[in-house]
Amino acid sequence: MKRIIKISDAFITCASSVVGKQEAEGPLGDIFDICDRTDKFGAKTWEQAESAMQKKAFSQLMNKSGMDIEEIGMVFAGDLQNQCVGSSYGLLDFDVPYIGLYGACSTAVEGLMLSAMTCSAGYADTCVAVTSSHYLAAERQYRSPIEYGAQRSPTAQWTVTGSAAFAVGRKGDVRISAVMPGIVVEKGINDASNMGAAMAPAAANTIYAFFKESGHAPEDFDVIATGDLGYEGGKILCELLASSGLDIRRQYTDCGALIYDRIKQDKHAGGSGCGCSAVVLASYFYPRLAVGKIRKMLVIGTGAMMSPSSIQQGLAIPAIGHLIQLEHGRG
Amino acid sequence: MKRIIKISDAFITCASSVVGKQEAEGPLGDIFDICDRTDKFGAKTWEQAESAMQKKAFSQLMNKSGMDIEEIGMVFAGDLQNQCVGSSYGLLDFDVPYIGLYGACSTAVEGLMLSAMTCSAGYADTCVAVTSSHYLAAERQYRSPIEYGAQRSPTAQWTVTGSAAFAVGRKGDVRISAVMPGIVVEKGINDASNMGAAMAPAAANTIYAFFKESGHAPEDFDVIATGDLGYEGGKILCELLASSGLDIRRQYTDCGALIYDRIKQDKHAGGSGCGCSAVVLASYFYPRLAVGKIRKMLVIGTGAMMSPSSIQQGLAIPAIGHLIQLEHGRG
Repeated sequence: MKRIIKISDAFITCASSVVGKQEAEGPLGDIFDICDRTDKFGAKTWEQAESAMQKKAFSQLMNKSGMDIEEIGMVFAGDLQNQCVGSSYGLLDFDVPYIGLYGACSTAVEGLMLSAMTCSAGYADTCVAVTSSHYLAAERQYRSPIEYGAQRSPTAQWTVTGSAAFAVGRKGDVRISAVMPGIVVEKGINDASNMGAAMAPAAANTIYAFFKESGHAPEDFDVIATGDLGYEGGKILCELLASSGLDIRRQYTDCGALIYDRIKQDKHAGGSGCGCSAVVLASYFYPRLAVGKIRKMLVIGTGAMMSPSSIQQGLAIPAIGHLIQLEHGRG
Repeated sequence: MKRIIKISDAFITCASSVVGKQEAEGPLGDIFDICDRTDKFGAKTWEQAESAMQKKAFSQLMNKSGMDIEEIGMVFAGDLQNQCVGSSYGLLDFDVPYIGLYGACSTAVEGLMLSAMTCSAGYADTCVAVTSSHYLAAERQYRSPIEYGAQRSPTAQWTVTGSAAFAVGRKGDVRISAVMPGIVVEKGINDASNMGAAMAPAAANTIYAFFKESGHAPEDFDVIATGDLGYEGGKILCELLASSGLDIRRQYTDCGALIYDRIKQDKHAGGSGCGCSAVVLASYFYPRLAVGKIRKMLVIGTGAMMSPSSIQQGLAIPAIGHLIQLEHGRG
């Protein structure tokens, strides 16, 4: 089975990002488009704050790109909230054909992958991929409300409060030249406070298969970035690949390791959540690809596909890694 | 904005269905492939029973089609459980590229739509769309465990215990000739026991736009079927369309109205859930399309995109209707 899908005509044409307080105070704080230091985005509940944030990211994309809503053929959206209500309420004000996704934290890359396929095939001139996560909504849904004061494990990651939106079209400056959907992988990790370990084997599966099938070497890429393996998962990923004879350490980074200051902010194992890879890709990597500071990179969106009830029932965590290949270059 | 996407080369090539006791006792009981009258499918919990059922539907599709797992380029899957764990655990044993969807009860049609687009564009030779819902898992997640004995409202629908899988390829006997993704619509309904009313305006939006853009008349179709509006929502849909000058009553039916006996089984407003449209389409409509008993039909997958917490927070229910056009004919 061939897993890599070559894409002939798809480009990221614009990207927007919106973040909360912790993200604004991190090392990338200055590059995000919009920040709300209350984390509330004018809403009454944390769940609704996430929708408001996603709405802001979408509106900001419209502003930056100068696009008209009518030009969008399809929006691919999803988030971590039960039944993905972050997105269904977040995009309610926009009359656009809506494809709901659930890829846990891999959703940004999943949406970009489907947007690239849809545009390149000519089904739409422009697609939008949008996703979000909110620390306070995620904490009380997956774990406990922060008021409870539960202690965090050293391997735990911090859900990014952030949302990003990407416009994908057939002309632009950053080419999506290939995509490769992941396979669901579960290697026995059932500790919901160690999602990096649960997701690393899925990322390794995708990356290993990509290099094997493409014939590329890690040196062909300036950067190989995972979405949110964090310090723990990133280390496991590099070890797993090294044991298969693939050394990506010189090119490797992780969005969850970039977004917070490891010493000053101490978010334990790093950032996570749908918003993590989304805002880092939108505001850190995309501009660098656009100007050619990065020529060619791989992004592997990583997702842990469990639920609170599957964890309560003692099941191990299935995970996934979707890959896109991005290249500098006008088309 | 043009919303209809014409598909040149995509066919449903095989379909499988698995159901529980109530569905087996309904008027369509004899046509489903597999039934487990315990509703447990050999699993320990209702959530895991749903995954086991989805696994069975996928395996049955492999058996019926004679396909090899290696032939599947992509599987599009999703369900109603939090974080779609029905699918992530259900398909864990199969090494196939996995695209997770969330479209609430519209997921079967959403998956078929994306499968058709993916195959016709040549990104994969064969795709699989799979979905499921389980009455007992859904009841305790969305409402109360049935042991609680809560009284049901007359407008409430009954979540179908069922899973179906569809193979889509470039040769077959039932053509997916057009698809049209829905727009999220919310018209103020916040009664989670009346999802038909919440979803009807979304279905009406899609159907009205389809006829306007295509120039077709309802008479051009043998059947126009919605996924799970039930009796209540189906009536509202026909009234909404009639008030816009579109009369579909002669062609109209609803999978949620077909699956249970209205008098003998009394499921109030009819069936619902991801599995509802999936199993009815797989085992009732698909064989009729394959032999030409139905020449041309529209299926509108309907989904209510709320969550228990959005309902608790008093929000109205956003809904969606995705459309596919199916035609008898070998390709």
